[in-house]
Amino acid sequence: FPFMILQQIPFTGQKQEFNRPPTRTTRCESSPRDKLQKSTKGPSDFCIKNISQADFGRKEIEMAEQEMPALMNLRKRAGGEKPLAGAKVVGCTHITAQTAVLIETLAALGAQCRWAACNIFSTQNAVAAALVKAGISVFAWRGESEDEFWWCIDHCVGTETWQPNMVLDDGGDLTDWIYKKYPELFKNLKGVVEESITGIYRLYQLSKAGRLSVPAMNVNDSVTKQKFDNLYFCKESVLEGLKRTTDIMFGGKQVVVCGYGEVGKGCCAALKALGAIVYVTEVDPICALQACMDGFRVIKLSEIVRHIDMVITCTGNKNVVMREHLDKMKNGCIVCNMGHSSSEIDLVKTHVFNWDEILFQMVVIIAGRLLNLSCSTVPSFVLSITAATQAMALIELYNAPEGRYNKDVYLLPKKMDEYVASLHLPIFDAHLTELSDDQAKYMGISKHGPFKPNYYRHKLLSHIDKH
Amino acid sequence: FPFMILQQIPFTGQKQEFNRPPTRTTRCESSPRDKLQKSTKGPSDFCIKNISQADFGRKEIEMAEQEMPALMNLRKRAGGEKPLAGAKVVGCTHITAQTAVLIETLAALGAQCRWAACNIFSTQNAVAAALVKAGISVFAWRGESEDEFWWCIDHCVGTETWQPNMVLDDGGDLTDWIYKKYPELFKNLKGVVEESITGIYRLYQLSKAGRLSVPAMNVNDSVTKQKFDNLYFCKESVLEGLKRTTDIMFGGKQVVVCGYGEVGKGCCAALKALGAIVYVTEVDPICALQACMDGFRVIKLSEIVRHIDMVITCTGNKNVVMREHLDKMKNGCIVCNMGHSSSEIDLVKTHVFNWDEILFQMVVIIAGRLLNLSCSTVPSFVLSITAATQAMALIELYNAPEGRYNKDVYLLPKKMDEYVASLHLPIFDAHLTELSDDQAKYMGISKHGPFKPNYYRHKLLSHIDKH
Amino acid sequence: FPFMILQQIPFTGQKQEFNRPPTRTTRCESSPRDKLQKSTKGPSDFCIKNISQADFGRKEIEMAEQEMPALMNLRKRAGGEKPLAGAKVVGCTHITAQTAVLIETLAALGAQCRWAACNIFSTQNAVAAALVKAGISVFAWRGESEDEFWWCIDHCVGTETWQPNMVLDDGGDLTDWIYKKYPELFKNLKGVVEESITGIYRLYQLSKAGRLSVPAMNVNDSVTKQKFDNLYFCKESVLEGLKRTTDIMFGGKQVVVCGYGEVGKGCCAALKALGAIVYVTEVDPICALQACMDGFRVIKLSEIVRHIDMVITCTGNKNVVMREHLDKMKNGCIVCNMGHSSSEIDLVKTHVFNWDEILFQMVVIIAGRLLNLSCSTVPSFVLSITAATQAMALIELYNAPEGRYNKDVYLLPKKMDEYVASLHLPIFDAHLTELSDDQAKYMGISKHGPFKPNYYRHKLLSHIDKH
Amino acid sequence: FPFMILQQIPFTGQKQEFNRPPTRTTRCESSPRDKLQKSTKGPSDFCIKNISQADFGRKEIEMAEQEMPALMNLRKRAGGEKPLAGAKVVGCTHITAQTAVLIETLAALGAQCRWAACNIFSTQNAVAAALVKAGISVFAWRGESEDEFWWCIDHCVGTETWQPNMVLDDGGDLTDWIYKKYPELFKNLKGVVEESITGIYRLYQLSKAGRLSVPAMNVNDSVTKQKFDNLYFCKESVLEGLKRTTDIMFGGKQVVVCGYGEVGKGCCAALKALGAIVYVTEVDPICALQACMDGFRVIKLSEIVRHIDMVITCTGNKNVVMREHLDKMKNGCIVCNMGHSSSEIDLVKTHVFNWDEILFQMVVIIAGRLLNLSCSTVPSFVLSITAATQAMALIELYNAPEGRYNKDVYLLPKKMDEYVASLHLPIFDAHLTELSDDQAKYMGISKHGPFKPNYYRHKLLSHIDKH
Repeated sequence: FPFMILQQIPFTGQKQEFNRPPTRTTRCESSPRDKLQKSTKGPSDFCIKNISQADFGRKEIEMAEQEMPALMNLRKRAGGEKPLAGAKVVGCTHITAQTAVLIETLAALGAQCRWAACNIFSTQNAVAAALVKAGISVFAWRGESEDEFWWCIDHCVGTETWQPNMVLDDGGDLTDWIYKKYPELFKNLKGVVEESITGIYRLYQLSKAGRLSVPAMNVNDSVTKQKFDNLYFCKESVLEGLKRTTDIMFGGKQVVVCGYGEVGKGCCAALKALGAIVYVTEVDPICALQACMDGFRVIKLSEIVRHIDMVITCTGNKNVVMREHLDKMKNGCIVCNMGHSSSEIDLVKTHVFNWDEILFQMVVIIAGRLLNLSCSTVPSFVLSITAATQAMALIELYNAPEGRYNKDVYLLPKKMDEYVASLHLPIFDAHLTELSDDQAKYMGISKHGPFKPNYYRHKLLSHIDKH
Repeated sequence: FPFMILQQIPFTGQKQEFNRPPTRTTRCESSPRDKLQKSTKGPSDFCIKNISQADFGRKEIEMAEQEMPALMNLRKRAGGEKPLAGAKVVGCTHITAQTAVLIETLAALGAQCRWAACNIFSTQNAVAAALVKAGISVFAWRGESEDEFWWCIDHCVGTETWQPNMVLDDGGDLTDWIYKKYPELFKNLKGVVEESITGIYRLYQLSKAGRLSVPAMNVNDSVTKQKFDNLYFCKESVLEGLKRTTDIMFGGKQVVVCGYGEVGKGCCAALKALGAIVYVTEVDPICALQACMDGFRVIKLSEIVRHIDMVITCTGNKNVVMREHLDKMKNGCIVCNMGHSSSEIDLVKTHVFNWDEILFQMVVIIAGRLLNLSCSTVPSFVLSITAATQAMALIELYNAPEGRYNKDVYLLPKKMDEYVASLHLPIFDAHLTELSDDQAKYMGISKHGPFKPNYYRHKLLSHIDKH
Repeated sequence: FPFMILQQIPFTGQKQEFNRPPTRTTRCESSPRDKLQKSTKGPSDFCIKNISQADFGRKEIEMAEQEMPALMNLRKRAGGEKPLAGAKVVGCTHITAQTAVLIETLAALGAQCRWAACNIFSTQNAVAAALVKAGISVFAWRGESEDEFWWCIDHCVGTETWQPNMVLDDGGDLTDWIYKKYPELFKNLKGVVEESITGIYRLYQLSKAGRLSVPAMNVNDSVTKQKFDNLYFCKESVLEGLKRTTDIMFGGKQVVVCGYGEVGKGCCAALKALGAIVYVTEVDPICALQACMDGFRVIKLSEIVRHIDMVITCTGNKNVVMREHLDKMKNGCIVCNMGHSSSEIDLVKTHVFNWDEILFQMVVIIAGRLLNLSCSTVPSFVLSITAATQAMALIELYNAPEGRYNKDVYLLPKKMDEYVASLHLPIFDAHLTELSDDQAKYMGISKHGPFKPNYYRHKLLSHIDKH
Repeated sequence: FPFMILQQIPFTGQKQEFNRPPTRTTRCESSPRDKLQKSTKGPSDFCIKNISQADFGRKEIEMAEQEMPALMNLRKRAGGEKPLAGAKVVGCTHITAQTAVLIETLAALGAQCRWAACNIFSTQNAVAAALVKAGISVFAWRGESEDEFWWCIDHCVGTETWQPNMVLDDGGDLTDWIYKKYPELFKNLKGVVEESITGIYRLYQLSKAGRLSVPAMNVNDSVTKQKFDNLYFCKESVLEGLKRTTDIMFGGKQVVVCGYGEVGKGCCAALKALGAIVYVTEVDPICALQACMDGFRVIKLSEIVRHIDMVITCTGNKNVVMREHLDKMKNGCIVCNMGHSSSEIDLVKTHVFNWDEILFQMVVIIAGRLLNLSCSTVPSFVLSITAATQAMALIELYNAPEGRYNKDVYLLPKKMDEYVASLHLPIFDAHLTELSDDQAKYMGISKHGPFKPNYYRHKLLSHIDKH
């Protein structure tokens, strides 16, 4: 029963921590790269675990298509025009049924694609097989060694006869490899689309150093994706993650949420709705005032740490829960991390704990690693937003007229962000109202968006922060 | 890491469906009942899987004690007095760490206990071992055959030298067995405490037929237990159950909840809080009006069935979702049952479905069996309420003066219900206000409860229904 | 603009506090009773302020009809049958546009009506005029003296040629007067329908003393009315009442709600939704546990009184907020009472306060009188529920076969309660689901209600309390 | 009882619509400006209604001080330093107890102030008197003629011996007047602080035209003020405004909210919490998707207009509710406007209505003018945020080193916005957490704010919109 198979896809932005090329090459006999592989139909140039699993993989892709109507819709809406005709995309992402829908959408829009995995554990082998059978050159299998990981990327980048003109990256490893081994490829590249915080950070570093060789699109920070990855996804997943790992009831429990950004706001709303008594810690007075107005007491963790049943960290900062807090917590207190940094809970200093004893003193879920990484799954809907945004970014970069983008890091234009959102509205049977000519003129905007007044907003924007 | 081990304890009230004694006896060599078993300490009269697991079981019991402070508190508060001194309790319940805390609480209060399992799948063997080592005669193991199930009950009921004076039953099988095989035991019995709806129904049938031989206490319908089993537990578990089996996001999803009783109210509140758009179906105009005022549109299922993303049945009635509804649902629509009856979804007529095809047409979770049975776990807190209520019922029946209870089915006196609630308040660090003499007089009640005005309430009560 | 005229109708159950007949009779020249009054059409037997206002009053009644579709619907549904044909109803209620719709509904169903006011301040003179013009004998005007109040009741009760066979009372003054002055009328009376808590209390006292001479129907405690008068009405009115009298923002404010019954539950839900941080005080552990599970900390008032911004009493008890609490509150703390008793706040002992000083020390809204009496209005919807229930009660008592009702106090039969609810569903465009024969049989109930299983409920009902 | 006096202060941003200087001068005998006025203490140069009301006005100011602890706190924190020493502030705002607290705070910080009213109706005469007695030259009274309005501004601007170096304006009339009559004053002006949308729009026009002569601070768009004026204030006021003008119950009512910006989000949240069934109309797909995820169906108004009970416009656009919508609404449907534009409801075309008939066909509250202008009041807390922001803006502009601000329109620096927020935290007994040096370094920000990561945010900000 396929819906029961929980897709333990690592949350975007969480990945293995090697990002230097391997220094030595070990060969292991059983590696797929040592096998001769043939696909009856499809490319000869690939390396996966087992082509015979393709039919099962195809079923999984078909199921994922059901859950990603936005991409399917995009195929229909833009498909006739082949906006990616001539594009040669090399990609490096998790290889799952959902990304397969993305890859096949790119292909349907005209692109040729070659793909490697951005994570050694997350490849769904059957899906990889189905992609190969459908003509995509895939180099990936579940359980690659570090050495194999780079080998796959290296073989994926291109051949003498096929050189990419677009890069779709998640984590920056592919981009890095090209920088290091094939810098000459950049002269053909129209752009890089990057998904992860880590990869974007690297791109900004390159840009700052004047070493960015192509336009890059920061997909992670698009408005739509941000809201869904942070506020909405966390609001829905925090309860399930905690329930799945403990059998706690939330009603009446005293919970501290550290940080009242989008993630914290989502967690607080969900916990409050189920009857938890939620306290907030904040360093920023504006966020603190918002927490007050939303009905949460703002306290310091140390003031209340002895009485609480749960702490959830959502700050992105480090050492938010310290050893001295852990020491004071009552028996069975749950500590978990929803933030993007794995250092929010001070587990370095916690190593002195005798873990057998901790058990009866407190519960630090999954050794302080991300709760939503370890205990939760990413819903198709979030993946659908991300994938549609990636597709739009590729289309935009590939089709942009000369001069629109320089060698810098860009956000998706507002209008395309709006387009991604509009692709998801039919799922909710939501009907947009259209502006009349008269109204559009009154607001000083185009009828078809982007839908912000052009009034004096441009001046304001540089001051507006996320609150 | 023990909290990760999800306790797949069948929800109380859900059990295997054989309740007739076996007609033939099959012997299988590997059955624990064919082994000679010895406990160095503890009774010689028991039959479990493996006594050597006792230490691990003891750890599990100790952990459960952490989560059931109400029972631990009861040991402290009532313990000195041994209110169950002289009680000989024969019990038949799920045998888990949580029931072990109950059994050992009874023992601490002075009772001698013998125990069998009410379910062939739910026994935690290590816990059974720990109980035996602690001196309880347990006859139970995971995976009993039907024949073994009755063998265990039979051996548990008593010996020539030990005859029970109290029965604690969950499902009515033990009570049935005594009725059928050892009716003479009733002359010593001070009472039966029954936990399940099924068991209570049987007791009322006996009472109606004039065949009930002892006072019986209906634990299932105590106010505290009802609220927790229905409203609060379902409010918390519906989201998790659905998330765990599908990866649905609730935000923006259109959901029909059939029935707006306590279970429906809990489901609706939780779904609304996470951003689902919830519709209600009702037959009772009073409940329907409540749904309106609480912000839910009241519709007939057939009016909206083509547009919805999910149906959740909470009626206790049968055939609420019919084949003609299933036929009209859109692709991927989720149907699940939170009610007490497994016939809410008309799966009899659904057998003609080709299940492979259904997959892409709709998802009937776990073949229409209870969602919270199959996909969720019962939190310790709910179990704690139930167990404390069972303990109080035993104490009440055992200590009641002659004549307080006749051969009928009773509810726990209001005051004891209040006592169970008060045992759980320290978990929430909740502080009760005490009435002044003056205030108690003004309200016409005792300072120490029961806390309903004695005004003209007695006249009203026979009219008040649950809304 | 009529909707702007706030209808300062005293909340049902709150009334002037004289309930003894006047001992002396003062005449004041300008009293309507000293005027000769004529209605061109309509009865000659009436006494109101000014018949010439009838047209304006008629407009107000027509507007109220818009807001009370349930009664209008009742006219349509039952009207053809004239279920009150032959009924002679003497009534004593607030005389407002809404009660006029009730009275004219009774008339439309066949009754002859005579009416007096139950409150010296609440009569809408124009409405009284319109009723007279429509043929109802009304004896009431705004601003009656105590003496005039009893004079009106006395003249309303009947004449030599017209004697009532039904009484509709709100407060018990009319019933009292008949007991004292016209006890012989009881032999014709088919029953008394009473609306207020005070009146019902008197009826139960009579019943207890064996002195109740007719069947009486307790309208106040019908399920539908209870829920609407307490939970839903208070949930909606608490915010408005406080906003209208102070300009407080609720977000972030710390509020104590004393009592977690229906009124308290409504207040807590509304305040929490607007971002207040709500604490609860309770004496009953079951209600306290519910408050915990619903997300409210349960504390004693004295623990937190120094820190809070607001206290709202909803207990029905007295002296809930004491002088020693008031002394400790911080500057500007708001204290208000939503309960049915005006003694929840200990203002007797507060008289020593210098009120000028209080102003800067704390705010006791409207000197501790009921917040919703003084600062809020009763919505038409609540009045509609009450009026429809009163009409159904009259119909039931008038048409009941001999022997159904004895000389006792009764609640409206469940089925009629359901009928009142069903009359209000069209307002919400709510569509009831109808049970199939099969389902009704499975549940053991009639297809047309009452919708509670007849299973073993009758045994349970005497134990179920309101939680 | 002062809290009962509802402060009908026009909502900021709503004002009388003359903004051209008067073309002719009418004298009316009874005008305060024709009286000789003397203050025993305080300035000789003022013009108000009646100096003898000063004591009553002082009491009102003292009460307002209780409600504006942030300004009082600012006096304490910054007072010793006299950051406005030497500042000569000419102000033009509503003159109320709350602005008096602001003006006296400026004075306490060292400024000399002269003040006129920005609205002919809103001046509290007693407060003006108290200000004069305290030494502020005030030129304002309730009920000025248009001519007197400009006369007051003209006399306020300065004298031969006193010339302003700072302007605090609300609506832009004062700034306009100086531009037109005293342009030479600009050479001494250090800056203009403007509060209203209208005034800011004028400043941006000047800036665009290259005619802005001084730095200007846009107070209206500071993050803190925006959130409070829009999201939080509207969330709290929408219910009260509707309840106060109609006696509607929200439970079960079907409501369309047009626009899902901050105002719409606030309205939707409040209505949903009270049990309304809320639909949203949107033109922007991103906002529409947010509405979906938050649990609101997104529809077009025309699809549902026949069935709804209420429409609330929050778009800022015009003609959102058109005559053709009004025609289709059901009897009693309420239409109201929470947006900043008074043209959201198409009442121009509605003039053909016979208003007597409308009454029974639909209710357009207060002829389509702003609901919260007409029926609600601005809470002290919102005023406190605004006033504190104005004070900070004056301090910043007055003390900024040469070159920090050019002749342009600026937003308050993020850090000062945070300071304003922090001034309000003590009201909620909220305790900020302080970053450790280590954490600040990890985040790349200062320990004392501003609290946004300096990472790559500067690049992002120009793309982030308000969602």
